[in-house]
Amino acid sequence: MTYTIEQIAKALGARAVGDTTLSISSVAEPAMASADQLAIAMKPSFAAALPEGGAQAAMLWEGADWENFGLKAAILTPRPRFAMAGLSAMMDPDIIASVGVHPSAVIDPTATLGDGVSVGPLSVIEAGARIGADSRIGAQVFIGRDVQIGENATLREGVKIGPRVRIGAHYIAQPGVAVGGDGFSFVTPEEGAVERVRDSLGDQGETKAQSWTRIHSLGSVQIGDDVEMGANSCVDRGNVRDTIIGNGCKIDNLAQIGHNVVIGNDCMICAQVGIAGSTRVGNNVVLGGQTGVSDNVFIGDNVITGGATKVLSNVPAGRVMLGYPAAKMDKQIELHKLLRRLPRLFTDVAAMKKGVPKDTSND
Amino acid sequence: MTYTIEQIAKALGARAVGDTTLSISSVAEPAMASADQLAIAMKPSFAAALPEGGAQAAMLWEGADWENFGLKAAILTPRPRFAMAGLSAMMDPDIIASVGVHPSAVIDPTATLGDGVSVGPLSVIEAGARIGADSRIGAQVFIGRDVQIGENATLREGVKIGPRVRIGAHYIAQPGVAVGGDGFSFVTPEEGAVERVRDSLGDQGETKAQSWTRIHSLGSVQIGDDVEMGANSCVDRGNVRDTIIGNGCKIDNLAQIGHNVVIGNDCMICAQVGIAGSTRVGNNVVLGGQTGVSDNVFIGDNVITGGATKVLSNVPAGRVMLGYPAAKMDKQIELHKLLRRLPRLFTDVAAMKKGVPKDTSND
Amino acid sequence: MTYTIEQIAKALGARAVGDTTLSISSVAEPAMASADQLAIAMKPSFAAALPEGGAQAAMLWEGADWENFGLKAAILTPRPRFAMAGLSAMMDPDIIASVGVHPSAVIDPTATLGDGVSVGPLSVIEAGARIGADSRIGAQVFIGRDVQIGENATLREGVKIGPRVRIGAHYIAQPGVAVGGDGFSFVTPEEGAVERVRDSLGDQGETKAQSWTRIHSLGSVQIGDDVEMGANSCVDRGNVRDTIIGNGCKIDNLAQIGHNVVIGNDCMICAQVGIAGSTRVGNNVVLGGQTGVSDNVFIGDNVITGGATKVLSNVPAGRVMLGYPAAKMDKQIELHKLLRRLPRLFTDVAAMKKGVPKDTSND
Repeated sequence: MTYTIEQIAKALGARAVGDTTLSISSVAEPAMASADQLAIAMKPSFAAALPEGGAQAAMLWEGADWENFGLKAAILTPRPRFAMAGLSAMMDPDIIASVGVHPSAVIDPTATLGDGVSVGPLSVIEAGARIGADSRIGAQVFIGRDVQIGENATLREGVKIGPRVRIGAHYIAQPGVAVGGDGFSFVTPEEGAVERVRDSLGDQGETKAQSWTRIHSLGSVQIGDDVEMGANSCVDRGNVRDTIIGNGCKIDNLAQIGHNVVIGNDCMICAQVGIAGSTRVGNNVVLGGQTGVSDNVFIGDNVITGGATKVLSNVPAGRVMLGYPAAKMDKQIELHKLLRRLPRLFTDVAAMKKGVPKDTSND
Repeated sequence: MTYTIEQIAKALGARAVGDTTLSISSVAEPAMASADQLAIAMKPSFAAALPEGGAQAAMLWEGADWENFGLKAAILTPRPRFAMAGLSAMMDPDIIASVGVHPSAVIDPTATLGDGVSVGPLSVIEAGARIGADSRIGAQVFIGRDVQIGENATLREGVKIGPRVRIGAHYIAQPGVAVGGDGFSFVTPEEGAVERVRDSLGDQGETKAQSWTRIHSLGSVQIGDDVEMGANSCVDRGNVRDTIIGNGCKIDNLAQIGHNVVIGNDCMICAQVGIAGSTRVGNNVVLGGQTGVSDNVFIGDNVITGGATKVLSNVPAGRVMLGYPAAKMDKQIELHKLLRRLPRLFTDVAAMKKGVPKDTSND
Repeated sequence: MTYTIEQIAKALGARAVGDTTLSISSVAEPAMASADQLAIAMKPSFAAALPEGGAQAAMLWEGADWENFGLKAAILTPRPRFAMAGLSAMMDPDIIASVGVHPSAVIDPTATLGDGVSVGPLSVIEAGARIGADSRIGAQVFIGRDVQIGENATLREGVKIGPRVRIGAHYIAQPGVAVGGDGFSFVTPEEGAVERVRDSLGDQGETKAQSWTRIHSLGSVQIGDDVEMGANSCVDRGNVRDTIIGNGCKIDNLAQIGHNVVIGNDCMICAQVGIAGSTRVGNNVVLGGQTGVSDNVFIGDNVITGGATKVLSNVPAGRVMLGYPAAKMDKQIELHKLLRRLPRLFTDVAAMKKGVPKDTSND
């Protein structure tokens, strides 16, 4: 599939300049682009590498002096990073064509597939499941009993969706996603050491060793529209009610969403984040990679956490957090600076102690 | 399946009050319960929401003033959280019925299945494997050569058990579990930088760059009775002997147990915990979410770690730990408080320096 | 399969002493070894347990007084840990024999399998894929369209390789590996809060809540020769160009390599490490377990990080790092010591404040 510069610019709502009839087959970074590729140079530092490659056309920022880079044509856009989203969708070589249902798939006769649904080899769809129109189910996928998935879903190879999970439209699940595992919920016959420690902040008291008894997960999982989940990420089902993920949420690889968690809309949960059971997360929250959030806490709207932040208590809306334990990012950065000066502080105080008589009254 | 209040109370060893003939089909949170559901309200703050829902009956704590909540019946128990375990097992809608062996499963003729074993579609059971009676093997499961699994196991979709792994009775594996991957064990021909750094605590010396040679895993994995493992969690096999997980251990999603690790009985390993190679963990240990434990250390009985604790050295029995590096929880919390006061300490010392002649003798 | 002490020593380039005709069937730890097993005792503390077991022969360090341990024979080597690599390869009971292609595998007619390739039950190989000679593809593996894999690969059960991924020779993938998921790359129509926070280090300003638009991954993944990946680990494909992993890299369980990342040769990436998008890693880098690396940073050659180090900015070649945020290991250890003395410092300063008139001039 090839496009002219004019066609691409029109699709992106961007401005085409130069020889807009030039034909483009794919995209490339500036230094590696060949003559039939569109070079992607979102800012001047990237565009500087254009002469190293063979591109005749590039996508650049509005106002770029494109002719000076030796190009024959360009697509100019005020926010190239956003334009890249549309361009990448046009150019994606891996959009799975609908190929119908592979004969090796094992599909229960009571499952319902919408129009245009394709199912890859060796996938399993169990009784009562309903798959929305135009969905693409890859190879070796598992869809459990009574699952509902909206239209236009993409489930990559090896995705596993447990029983009774309900998912909205345009869902994307990367390889190995596991939705609907049982919640991690166990209880001891008598009050246990963990319960005691939570109350005492560190003292186990005289609690005796006990074995764990399982609380079964009676809830399932609800996922909104336009949600994407990364490779090998997990969402557990709820104890009594469902675990809930709102519309527009994006969840990266190896992230873990515990039982009973409720996440609002348009959140970004980066790789290896863990959200423990029964925690609630607002809308438009961004949790940086490897962030951890304790169970039963509340994170307000628009909160952002930096990488590896460990959230041990509630976070009010709008806060930007960093560190372990999480603190406001500006305060945490200030603390990091002070810690680098700590050896000097110890030296200073030691010096002062030698010169200063210690007050020994009253203590 | 429905139960009367009396039947449920009897099964749980709890006390039924009011109209104990009321019929219950499932459970719900107080605010969302309908008339045929049992509301779960383990403490007064939860019970306060009963009027928002339509429940006629609830499970409450011993001594609760159940009639005041507008209920017709109640189940009273001194520890509702524990009673919830039994109740949830009665009410679980997803207990997999034994459906025999699906014709699409690929089962080696030398594998042995106990009475009542069911095997889901597209699962693989290799030569010499033995599966205990009444076990439920889900869809797309892999069970390797000479694996032994005890009676009444539940293996969800996509579970993978490597060759020669031995597992006790009542094992539960959530979707995507991987037991029996090879240990991560590599060596350089000459002493390498990592070995040098461990000895010097930070100095690589003059070690040269080398490639890694693989140490094959000759051991396998032994797992005791009553163990559960979470979605996409991993246990590697041992180098020379087996990696060992004791009875009653519960392991959450995306946790990682390295080669040669030995874990005692009744431990709780929360989500995304990592335990590096050859570390030994005692009995009744609880490792909070995202805890990391270095290789070759020892964690004593009854140790508890808070979320994201990073254990870099041995921990004596009974300790409650928090932080990175791990410290006793009470000391760590005290340290966190002091760190919040650190800016003020710097200010104070700076002020004192201006007012105090520094002792310049002897240093 | 059994070997004599002489055969083993010869294969390892080590020295055999005593009755070198003794026959060995497998290996064991000293305390658990039986008469036909070779005990592995790499250092004196391990050898002390030899009398507890029944070994007649052991692998020991050069210069060991083997007769004093009651042995009839020994293999002596200057670096037993390295010799163990060769020994373990000889003794591995799980080397998968080439068994041809299982009839249940679904292999596109346009895929090409080299000589001696075996494919396990219920695996899928899509159109245009090419698998090198003598590769062992396990059960339930997925190999996508146009994938290239070099000779002598081992792909364990449930490995998933996405479309267009190219992999060198001798690749080993443990169960559940996912290569070639889409990169986690999203953009908002207008400048978003995360972009603002990066510039301001903590201030969201007046950015409004927006939904995320997806940037498709047009690149794929390139992996060099002699790479191993651990169970359920993930490598995402690049946005415009490929994500790249160099020769000789070893990646442990549940590690995450983001889109566009470039990793050099002979790196060791331990369990649960996360490397965020577009970060570049040099050669011979070792990242300890649970290390996190921010996006778009650079880590120089020979860098080593301790467990759970969080790298938020560039690290020059040769550094040994620890902590969150990462600092040079020796400085971080010094800081940890000072922090333990912090309560005393507060006490000292408080005492001094009482005894010292505060300078109130000029501030």
